[in-house]
Amino acid sequence: MTGILTQLFDEARTFSYWQARPVPDELVEAAFELAFLGPTSANCEPLRLVLVRSPEAKQRLLPCVSSGNYEKVRTAPVTAIVAYDLKFFELLPRLYPHSDAGAWFTTNPAFAEETALRNSSLQGGYFILALRAHGLDCGPMSGFDAAKVDAAFFPEARWRTNFLLNIGYGDRSRLHPRLPRLSFDEVARWE
Amino acid sequence: MTGILTQLFDEARTFSYWQARPVPDELVEAAFELAFLGPTSANCEPLRLVLVRSPEAKQRLLPCVSSGNYEKVRTAPVTAIVAYDLKFFELLPRLYPHSDAGAWFTTNPAFAEETALRNSSLQGGYFILALRAHGLDCGPMSGFDAAKVDAAFFPEARWRTNFLLNIGYGDRSRLHPRLPRLSFDEVARWE
Repeated sequence: MTGILTQLFDEARTFSYWQARPVPDELVEAAFELAFLGPTSANCEPLRLVLVRSPEAKQRLLPCVSSGNYEKVRTAPVTAIVAYDLKFFELLPRLYPHSDAGAWFTTNPAFAEETALRNSSLQGGYFILALRAHGLDCGPMSGFDAAKVDAAFFPEARWRTNFLLNIGYGDRSRLHPRLPRLSFDEVARWE
Repeated sequence: MTGILTQLFDEARTFSYWQARPVPDELVEAAFELAFLGPTSANCEPLRLVLVRSPEAKQRLLPCVSSGNYEKVRTAPVTAIVAYDLKFFELLPRLYPHSDAGAWFTTNPAFAEETALRNSSLQGGYFILALRAHGLDCGPMSGFDAAKVDAAFFPEARWRTNFLLNIGYGDRSRLHPRLPRLSFDEVARWE
């Protein structure tokens, strides 16, 4: 495996402890640009992002996270709120101009939300790997109260939180051994 | 940007037309192994995979896809059914042994399914990039009847289809220009 693939998949780990080393804005923004090149259905690109790093914004976020994630979020240089736009389809005339794809969603909010969750998660996966490609470490988290985060950061109720993602330079000395992985033969098959 | 990152994100495109060149099993399986290293919440790894390539299995899949995707699926060397396990949490005692994480899901099927959709989509994103890292091209698709695919391939109703993914060596001569992408300033902010 080449060096960059080792960096993206193998050496990369989920971090809970962070070095006291700032995260340059331009690296995160470059990772965003890379991630947005990845495919989404009908090019819908529903991922939205709030990058929380000011003490004031951290104070709004911290009461929303589980006790097990509190210190991780408090100490991470940046915590991204990875969200999706419930009205992503309003942009489809621009993003997918050769078809009236917006009509698939306007009358079916449940289908729109499932599409937004699926595709913002795909984009979240691209973003994690793109951050790692830029030398940054990640700590994605689902342990938080999504309704509280939405109320604190998205009062207009158009964006909805998908997951949280700590970003920084991780402290490798405090990693645990990697947890087990399922094998191909257990969960996949050729037909 | 280094060569492999260009290959993963920038030169890579969503393909609809395929070269008459077979896909080695071992490349797809190696991409699977790489993708499963990526993070999921509580290490839940809900992605499940059926790799459709036999004429018989293609004949079962083709009636389930939209007219716009029919020829893409018919001609792709492999079409992966990217699915998730609704009972993924039964494996958590093995995958996340230090906590009783399974209890979060057993009494809440809606939360379990949202978790499965989110995390199998994250893993789907890792898988797309891992396939590209192994020199393969992808064509992910949401245009199909998921209930029909589930009935045709998952009669036991434990796995559920998330999206379809054509895999092969794409025909670059038939690519259209890349569709527009949203910019950081439009959909992200620092706080």
